Amino acid sequence: MSDSPHRYDETARAAVYRVIRERRDVRSFLCTPVDPETLARILQCAHAAPSVGLSQPWRFLHITRLDLRHKIHALVQQERLRTADALGHRREEFLRLKVEGILDCAELLVVALAQGGTREIFGRRSLPEMDLASVACAIQNLWLAARAEGLGVGWVSMFDPLALADLLHCPEHVRPIAILCIGNVAQFDPAPRLALEQWRQPRPLGELLFENSWPEGAQ
Amino acid sequence: MSDSPHRYDETARAAVYRVIRERRDVRSFLCTPVDPETLARILQCAHAAPSVGLSQPWRFLHITRLDLRHKIHALVQQERLRTADALGHRREEFLRLKVEGILDCAELLVVALAQGGTREIFGRRSLPEMDLASVACAIQNLWLAARAEGLGVGWVSMFDPLALADLLHCPEHVRPIAILCIGNVAQFDPAPRLALEQWRQPRPLGELLFENSWPEGAQ
Repeated sequence: MSDSPHRYDETARAAVYRVIRERRDVRSFLCTPVDPETLARILQCAHAAPSVGLSQPWRFLHITRLDLRHKIHALVQQERLRTADALGHRREEFLRLKVEGILDCAELLVVALAQGGTREIFGRRSLPEMDLASVACAIQNLWLAARAEGLGVGWVSMFDPLALADLLHCPEHVRPIAILCIGNVAQFDPAPRLALEQWRQPRPLGELLFENSWPEGAQ
Repeated sequence: MSDSPHRYDETARAAVYRVIRERRDVRSFLCTPVDPETLARILQCAHAAPSVGLSQPWRFLHITRLDLRHKIHALVQQERLRTADALGHRREEFLRLKVEGILDCAELLVVALAQGGTREIFGRRSLPEMDLASVACAIQNLWLAARAEGLGVGWVSMFDPLALADLLHCPEHVRPIAILCIGNVAQFDPAPRLALEQWRQPRPLGELLFENSWPEGAQ
């Protein structure tokens, strides 16, 4: 079996595998600033993502006003308490976890999905949620590029999207789906925080990969 | 402004930016085989993705039976015609586009979302679609790793998810969201196919990036 002539050399392949392996969902940041050119570069990586029907449904709001940052933090705190209550017997354990770094991170982005509704049906007629998938691909691109730059990124999804849309004056078709905390970090964890904190243990790939059809009883 | 000590060296950063820039959504494949170890490696990259609450909601079905591949192709053809009809005046133009390479690609994967429902509320209580976002991040990881290996990947989302779930015996909580065509290619396009084919022109990042709040009239 011959290699593809389009295959990257060993050093470049190793860098790609490394960044995928070393990317972390970060909750603790240093207060040192981020170079604006680096922020611009990783945003261009988000924008280089695939999108269903080339719809580019991602929108980025760079939050530079401190009062807005505090209001966003307050929204997340509200949802954090609602989540804690909904978790029942794991409430106290959950409240001990650090779930966001909104006030500490150097840069704050809100990423929103601009919903095309039924105007955008290319690749979405039977799977309307593909627009959200495109925005997630964009965020993953940014996340990986940030890691290569030595920057941590945390995707916070604990907020009421309607309240955040209202705060940022988003029109009805725009749904915020991520608060991204971006900044320098003291360290990158060797494994996901939720695993290190014993919240949950990840499953191996072998349990999630099947041949041809779904095996009876698989979860 | 000092660089992060966690920043990759210039060669490694360049490889990460390169793979993000050169990844393409591929529809035309060569029939040459893909090394099983390479397939396993890029699947591990998908599995290294972030997931909301460490829920790992991705499931992979490796389609190795030729009869199944033909049935999946037929499902996509059905949805392609429904999409064409729904597109109205662009129907004929749409039908001239190549929208999938299911019968040509070396390897075929179906990626499904295992919906946790209300059992999985960490980071999802107010944004239930975050499980889908996690699966999209996993696919983006696989896509980038495949590009570094010189392999093309096409994400096909033109199918009835219930019909595909039925074909693959998926239980009710499992929703197929992607048919991934993976294989060797003659070339990687310099830009997205839909732009090259004049279906649609991409917008620059500047139109999609705002400061603090949504500008009046922005789309």
